[in-house]
Amino acid sequence: MASGPMTGRGDAANVDGVTAEAPLALLCRGPDRPGLLHEVTGVILRHGGNITSIAIAERDVTAAIHLEIELPSGAPEGRERLLAELRVVSSLEDVQLVPTMLEVFGKRLIVIGGGAQVGQVAIGAVSEADRHNIRGEKISVDTIPVVGERNIAEAVRAVGRLPRAVGIVLAGSLMGGEITRAVEQVRARGIFVISLNMPGSAAAAADLIVTDPVQAGVMAVMAIAKTARFDIARQRGRRY
Amino acid sequence: MASGPMTGRGDAANVDGVTAEAPLALLCRGPDRPGLLHEVTGVILRHGGNITSIAIAERDVTAAIHLEIELPSGAPEGRERLLAELRVVSSLEDVQLVPTMLEVFGKRLIVIGGGAQVGQVAIGAVSEADRHNIRGEKISVDTIPVVGERNIAEAVRAVGRLPRAVGIVLAGSLMGGEITRAVEQVRARGIFVISLNMPGSAAAAADLIVTDPVQAGVMAVMAIAKTARFDIARQRGRRY
Repeated sequence: MASGPMTGRGDAANVDGVTAEAPLALLCRGPDRPGLLHEVTGVILRHGGNITSIAIAERDVTAAIHLEIELPSGAPEGRERLLAELRVVSSLEDVQLVPTMLEVFGKRLIVIGGGAQVGQVAIGAVSEADRHNIRGEKISVDTIPVVGERNIAEAVRAVGRLPRAVGIVLAGSLMGGEITRAVEQVRARGIFVISLNMPGSAAAAADLIVTDPVQAGVMAVMAIAKTARFDIARQRGRRY
Repeated sequence: MASGPMTGRGDAANVDGVTAEAPLALLCRGPDRPGLLHEVTGVILRHGGNITSIAIAERDVTAAIHLEIELPSGAPEGRERLLAELRVVSSLEDVQLVPTMLEVFGKRLIVIGGGAQVGQVAIGAVSEADRHNIRGEKISVDTIPVVGERNIAEAVRAVGRLPRAVGIVLAGSLMGGEITRAVEQVRARGIFVISLNMPGSAAAAADLIVTDPVQAGVMAVMAIAKTARFDIARQRGRRY
């Protein structure tokens, strides 16, 4: 079994930005053409900025790039100078200040598996996330109902490439083989995995096995929430 | 009321990549420092590549950048040359071929609002997505239970900056003011909005009002699925 930090990237520098100094978040619009991103990253680099998050939101005639940037000084003049210089990049039509994705959607729990169980896990997870979000946290619950060993394994592995994803619930009736290896890989990257009680080797590779899907969703969100006293590291290997 | 194309970015070039020639998807790992992204985008630009999706998945000692790239020729040699050149960028430790996020998670429906209703909409949406995903589609259902006019409006607006998001369900009991303006803005960008039947002006600004939350989730996924005969443009302004 892999043994990454159990609360995963929830504790990493890039997802604690809500309480610490938030990065500068920008939405840049310009023509959708090769080179736009390279020009924008060049301007940011000249200001010593470190890009902590980036996404291309729209691609039609124009492209919209969402950027989150840590600036070295933290001084407001640094932000103003960067903004001013981006606004004169010839190919950018518009540069707007926006909230960071962590501020808006927060940390993400990903539920993967069969429709019936995914829906029940979502019920528990959404209800528990609501209880924490109402007290100022931000936790999103994302789901993908998908069948087949390869599809599920790809989805599990891809969670390691999703921004702000910190945990997975495996919600199915039979998972093993390639899925088990994918579980080990994402756990090694610090993503926690809770599995429903099911046949196959994937459940035993998870941090924790929970039989009731609503309970599994609730526990997964408790493992993410700062306002919950639930340490998944202390639950490792248990079955409920 | 805004009147963007109702099936939204579901029809745009960047989300039809599953059936058309899929872009080249890469996971690049290197030290987390300013300039890495600029170097990588520079190599891609020299190959005439257009970056269609980008995300920073991990940031610890190393950073992992997920990139999706359209190359001009489409010839396999172009891909091989780009890969070879990226693999010798001094600061990249690893360059791996991975599936695209569209191939793995597909198009995204975002459910925003109060926990009780969000959970019920998710039940309907996940169950319906399962029916289509089992026939080869990929539709994800993402949720954020969140309270307060400003938080909800920010979440609605931010959907316009989320990769692969094509529709929203407003799942609450009272939404208006700033939320209504956010609904108009995202609809103008081609994102469709279905609202539960609730007090406040936001519902009337949506494409469609649906009273039952399970039905709202099902209809939202039908509006996204290629295998469903449901055209939300023909439903505009209706209440169920």
